[in-house]
Amino acid sequence: MSIKIPRGTQDILPGTVEKWQYIEEVAKDICRNFQYKEIRTPIFEHAELFTRGVGDTTDIVQKEMYTFKDRGDRDLSLRPEGTAAVVRSFVENKMFGHANQPVKLFYSGPMFRYERPQAGRYRQFVQFGVEALGSEDPAIDAEVISLAMSLYQAVGLKKLKLIVNSLGDNESRVAHREALIAHFKPRIEEFCTDCQTRLEKNPLRILDCKKDRNHELMATAPSILDYLNEESRSYFEKVQSYLSLMDVEFVVDPTLVRGLDYYNHTAFEIMSDAEGFGAITTLCGGGRYNGLVEEIGGPSTPGIGFALSIERLLAAVDAEEVELPVESKVDCYVVALGDQAKDYSVKIVSDLRKAGLSAERDYLDRKLKAQFKAADRVQARYVAVLGEEELSSGTINLKDMESGEQESIKISKLVEAIQER
Amino acid sequence: MSIKIPRGTQDILPGTVEKWQYIEEVAKDICRNFQYKEIRTPIFEHAELFTRGVGDTTDIVQKEMYTFKDRGDRDLSLRPEGTAAVVRSFVENKMFGHANQPVKLFYSGPMFRYERPQAGRYRQFVQFGVEALGSEDPAIDAEVISLAMSLYQAVGLKKLKLIVNSLGDNESRVAHREALIAHFKPRIEEFCTDCQTRLEKNPLRILDCKKDRNHELMATAPSILDYLNEESRSYFEKVQSYLSLMDVEFVVDPTLVRGLDYYNHTAFEIMSDAEGFGAITTLCGGGRYNGLVEEIGGPSTPGIGFALSIERLLAAVDAEEVELPVESKVDCYVVALGDQAKDYSVKIVSDLRKAGLSAERDYLDRKLKAQFKAADRVQARYVAVLGEEELSSGTINLKDMESGEQESIKISKLVEAIQER
Repeated sequence: MSIKIPRGTQDILPGTVEKWQYIEEVAKDICRNFQYKEIRTPIFEHAELFTRGVGDTTDIVQKEMYTFKDRGDRDLSLRPEGTAAVVRSFVENKMFGHANQPVKLFYSGPMFRYERPQAGRYRQFVQFGVEALGSEDPAIDAEVISLAMSLYQAVGLKKLKLIVNSLGDNESRVAHREALIAHFKPRIEEFCTDCQTRLEKNPLRILDCKKDRNHELMATAPSILDYLNEESRSYFEKVQSYLSLMDVEFVVDPTLVRGLDYYNHTAFEIMSDAEGFGAITTLCGGGRYNGLVEEIGGPSTPGIGFALSIERLLAAVDAEEVELPVESKVDCYVVALGDQAKDYSVKIVSDLRKAGLSAERDYLDRKLKAQFKAADRVQARYVAVLGEEELSSGTINLKDMESGEQESIKISKLVEAIQER
Repeated sequence: MSIKIPRGTQDILPGTVEKWQYIEEVAKDICRNFQYKEIRTPIFEHAELFTRGVGDTTDIVQKEMYTFKDRGDRDLSLRPEGTAAVVRSFVENKMFGHANQPVKLFYSGPMFRYERPQAGRYRQFVQFGVEALGSEDPAIDAEVISLAMSLYQAVGLKKLKLIVNSLGDNESRVAHREALIAHFKPRIEEFCTDCQTRLEKNPLRILDCKKDRNHELMATAPSILDYLNEESRSYFEKVQSYLSLMDVEFVVDPTLVRGLDYYNHTAFEIMSDAEGFGAITTLCGGGRYNGLVEEIGGPSTPGIGFALSIERLLAAVDAEEVELPVESKVDCYVVALGDQAKDYSVKIVSDLRKAGLSAERDYLDRKLKAQFKAADRVQARYVAVLGEEELSSGTINLKDMESGEQESIKISKLVEAIQER
């Protein structure tokens, strides 16, 4: 009996993996231009990091984490998201003391949430994200947002919608929170039990509830924008003016609430507007989290970042029918006839590869015709044919598969001949 | 209180991560030249995959796996190595039926073993490996070995030692096995309990025992090379002659035994000969595993591959004092004076980045001098200075940090000016 892949996970196979590689290259180039440096944190962390850093009232921590004990009886969790671990590393490695501030980081790697698998939703999925720690300049909020947009645009997506909002500073949030409680409390028993719990703990998250989204109190709930104090309002205006200055189009949506507990000021999401993209249209979410570094045990440090799923990005690529520029041609396939020529083709292929060319030969003892077929299948640009006769005269027959031209050349000149063309 | 990284794991931070990126680039290029395609399998698999595919008598499975139950009561294990999962995917995705044979794959990613952490040994470590499935041509054994050597050499390592051995086909192995049992059985009680278990289950692995390595019976144990049948001998000779043809230097070591259960025919290891490299000198291990695909539930299919640790590769790079060509300069740092110029610098930086240049500005409201210092720290190639006066005249002052030359140019020509130089 064969063993299957675990439910909710996927293999990324040749033929598809090239798209992933391409997107990673694009992301790396953009991060270089924006001067965000890569950080790699472990696949698992102490469970406590996420209860503190993501928030123990969140679905992620309450229902979706893979938590287990290691052989030393420690509670470890497969990371459900990237920010908490980056902040843990920022604190542990005292990056707040580095000369270069703000510290601008990006990450890319698998995350894990135990959810019901469905189209486009996996238990292991790949997130790319950035974090900028140490600056409260609204220009960095705009930079982070424009980095995300640049990535989607560089990949070739056009049907994008960027929505931004402000959750305000602490003072504004407290005022808004009181207004929310006053608004929902009289009729809270009409809401789901989760929302009833949220009312006192974090009423903002009621606005994010999927079950109660159509309740009439939702549409009339007090808007955070009416509760921003002067400083928060001016901060948000600056962010918007910088976005405009960079020609980044956006819409202000006062109902945008991020699912995690630690956001303040700027919040944003990027959605796909492509037809047939499916129910989940959010591609990317992010925002400012000025309280998080302290929560994780570091000195008070402002931060902002976003995370996006590569799976959803690829789904948007498919929905918009974008052709990613991926191809994998073989520079030269060496066809050999007869035992001696076959043996010697090992050296020829090896020399081509040493020169930085991609080269292939047959490993199934196939006949001439089948070797040519194999060369076709791998889209060989050139085919070099070596028989016993050629071998004894030190020559090889080089065929250009595009023009159909053939030429007999010295074996010792093969690398050069292909490099020249 | 702050939360620490889990024991035996590490963060890979900016300053170090560039080395990892460089090695991954080199590995990807070599795989392209050798025509190995990337495959990505999940971080965890059903535990049973490894008990079957790695072998339930191995230390890895018995002592070192991170195994846990998911919320659906399935036994899942963080992958301790890469081959079993690649073979699982090969079987599950019916790659044995693909037109292109053999199927040549590479992988790169974190693996997990619960071991006592020590210098150079982590509980999460990164393996790069390749697998070639579907060919029994000794030329592919030589190809796989030369791919590994090419990678180390491309990175700049010189002090390498390649050892090869043959474990023979089944017939040869059975003959050798009987000879081993006859050799050890009379004095097996002088060996550790693990070896006593191995005697009947897999006596070959006694030769691999760390505790009993100095027992006098070890040196006199029957050599597999004396038990190879004609076919196995000729196979091994072919592999060696292909290696020589490709100018790959090697030593035959009949005591080389791989720790995993499923190897036959070719086995090899690459070690570092660098001084001060420490106790663990093996950089890479691999071999042929013709029985594994069947063991995992697929049709009988020959296979060969290797795995290497990136951590150890980097340790060898350090030991040989190889300078990897990594640098991360900023093309242009924009220094701005006054509120309006600062605001407008957001657009200038954004335009530079859109043109594919790396660009940076200040996000801490620093004064002129501190901005210049920051530009120095990030090794800016050019610094563009924008004051209120320049802004109103639409110009910017561009300074070449290598030559020291300065020039006032139109803001609209800045991208062009930097690209030209």
